[in-house]
Amino acid sequence: MKIAMLQFDPSFGETNKNLDRIQEALTGRSADLVVLPELCTTGYQFIDRAEAASLAEPADGKSAGRLAEIAGCCQAHLVAGFAEKSGGKIFNSAILVSSQGTVGVYRKVHLFSEEKNLFAPGDLGFRVFPVGNVPVGIMICFDWIFPESARSLSTAGAWVIAHPANLVLPFCQSAMVTRALENRVFTVTCNRTGQENRVEGISYRFTGSSRMVAPDGTVLAQGAAGDTEVISVEIDPDLAGNKQITKNNHILEDRRPDQYRLS
Amino acid sequence: MKIAMLQFDPSFGETNKNLDRIQEALTGRSADLVVLPELCTTGYQFIDRAEAASLAEPADGKSAGRLAEIAGCCQAHLVAGFAEKSGGKIFNSAILVSSQGTVGVYRKVHLFSEEKNLFAPGDLGFRVFPVGNVPVGIMICFDWIFPESARSLSTAGAWVIAHPANLVLPFCQSAMVTRALENRVFTVTCNRTGQENRVEGISYRFTGSSRMVAPDGTVLAQGAAGDTEVISVEIDPDLAGNKQITKNNHILEDRRPDQYRLS
Repeated sequence: MKIAMLQFDPSFGETNKNLDRIQEALTGRSADLVVLPELCTTGYQFIDRAEAASLAEPADGKSAGRLAEIAGCCQAHLVAGFAEKSGGKIFNSAILVSSQGTVGVYRKVHLFSEEKNLFAPGDLGFRVFPVGNVPVGIMICFDWIFPESARSLSTAGAWVIAHPANLVLPFCQSAMVTRALENRVFTVTCNRTGQENRVEGISYRFTGSSRMVAPDGTVLAQGAAGDTEVISVEIDPDLAGNKQITKNNHILEDRRPDQYRLS
Repeated sequence: MKIAMLQFDPSFGETNKNLDRIQEALTGRSADLVVLPELCTTGYQFIDRAEAASLAEPADGKSAGRLAEIAGCCQAHLVAGFAEKSGGKIFNSAILVSSQGTVGVYRKVHLFSEEKNLFAPGDLGFRVFPVGNVPVGIMICFDWIFPESARSLSTAGAWVIAHPANLVLPFCQSAMVTRALENRVFTVTCNRTGQENRVEGISYRFTGSSRMVAPDGTVLAQGAAGDTEVISVEIDPDLAGNKQITKNNHILEDRRPDQYRLS
C-alpha cells in the first residue's frame, strides 16, 4: 500500500485555487491513499461563524466532487479536511473520497481554541472506512492530544490513522510515535505550512513537518517545516494487523476496562 | 515540592542488601517524595511462581517497615516496587510509605511478558494518595504503553504520577513526554539499571535513563543509562493543577466520552 501526504499552504477563502493546487501537485502521481491537511480547501482562520458558513459545503458538495475527480486521476483514495455544512451546523470535518465520490465523513470531536466559536463539535464518533482491504480511520489535528481519539479508532479496527492537521503547537509530531506504538497502527499526519493572521492579535504559524509513523514507532517519513511537498511511502499494512507486542501481550486485548476510570 | 528518583541495580533475591543500599543512597538527603524502581527489593526475574512467592511480602511486612524507617530519616514519602503477597496471590505492586508506615498500595494492572506466569493481575484500579497537599498516583513500568493508565490516574485527580519501572524496551522514556502533556501532570519514571539472566534464553538489560517530565512536556531530569544515582528536582505542583491548555481548552473537561469507543 502506497500512502502519500500532500503538505502545502492553502490560500484563505480561495477554494478553487486550493483545489487546483491539489490537482496540480497530485497529477501524474499514484498512491492508494493521499492525506491532505485540515481545512485544506478553505484555509483555517475564519473571522466568525458567518464567514465559516459562507465557505462551508456539504460532504457531497462541489469540492467533494472535484476531490473525487482528482482521486480518479491518481487512482487513489483521498482524505481531505474541509468546512462542512450540515443541518444548519458547521463542522470542522474530513472526507474520505474515491473516484466514485464521498466514502465517509469524520467531524472533529475536539475543537481547538477559537474553533469552539466557529464549529459544532463532531457528532459522528471515530469511524473506520475501507481503503481496498485496509481499514482507515480519521482524526483531525488537536484530536491527537486526547489519547481516546486514536484509541477509539484502533478499537474500531483502524490499521491506518489519516490525520489531517493545521498544527501550531510543537508537540504533536513527536507524540505521534506514541500514538502509533500504543495502538500498533500507522499514523499519517499531514500538516499545513504557512501563516494566517486574519484576526487582530491572533497569528497562527503552521508547523509543517508532516509525519508518517509505523506501528513499531519508526518514523517512516517527515516533511520539512515550511515546504510544499508530496511525501510517499510504501507500507505493509499487515504490520498493523498484528497487535502482539510480546508473545504474551496483545495491545488491545490486554486492556482492562474494569480497572480504568475513563468516564 | 522536592521529588527524587533513586535509580540503581538491585541484586536478585537479596532483599536486605537492597534495602541497605536504598538506605545508604538516601541517608542525608531530603525530599518530599522519592520514587524507586519496580521490584526494587527483590530484583525482577523470578524463575517461577514459587520463587516469587518465597520472596513476596505483605504490604505492611518487614520490607515495608524498613522503607518506613528510611522515609522517616529523609522526612520523605517513598514509592517502591515490591512483590506483594496477599490472600494467596502474588502481585507486582508498589507501595507508598511515610515514616508512619504504608499509606497506599498499587498492584500492576498490565503485566508484561513472563510476568503473566508469576503474578496475578492488579485488582485495585488506579488510585491517588496524598503526599502533603499533592495528589500522587502510581503506575508500574509497562502500564505506560496503555494510555488508559495515566489517564485513569489523572481523572482520579493525580498531579504527580510515580512510575517505578524495570524497562527493557527503548520507547517509554520518550513516550512519558506525551503522557505528561496529554494529562498535564508531572511524571516520575524511576527505572532500574543492570542486567538479569536467570532464565535460560531470556536475558533482560534494563535501560536506566530515569526521567522526570513536567505538565508542559519539559524533561526536567534524566538519569544515565547505567549508573546508580539519586536525581532530585524541585517542582511547583500547582502547574499540574491547571488543566487549561488554551483559554478555551481544558485537557480533562474537553474529553467527550460519548464519542469514544473504549470498552
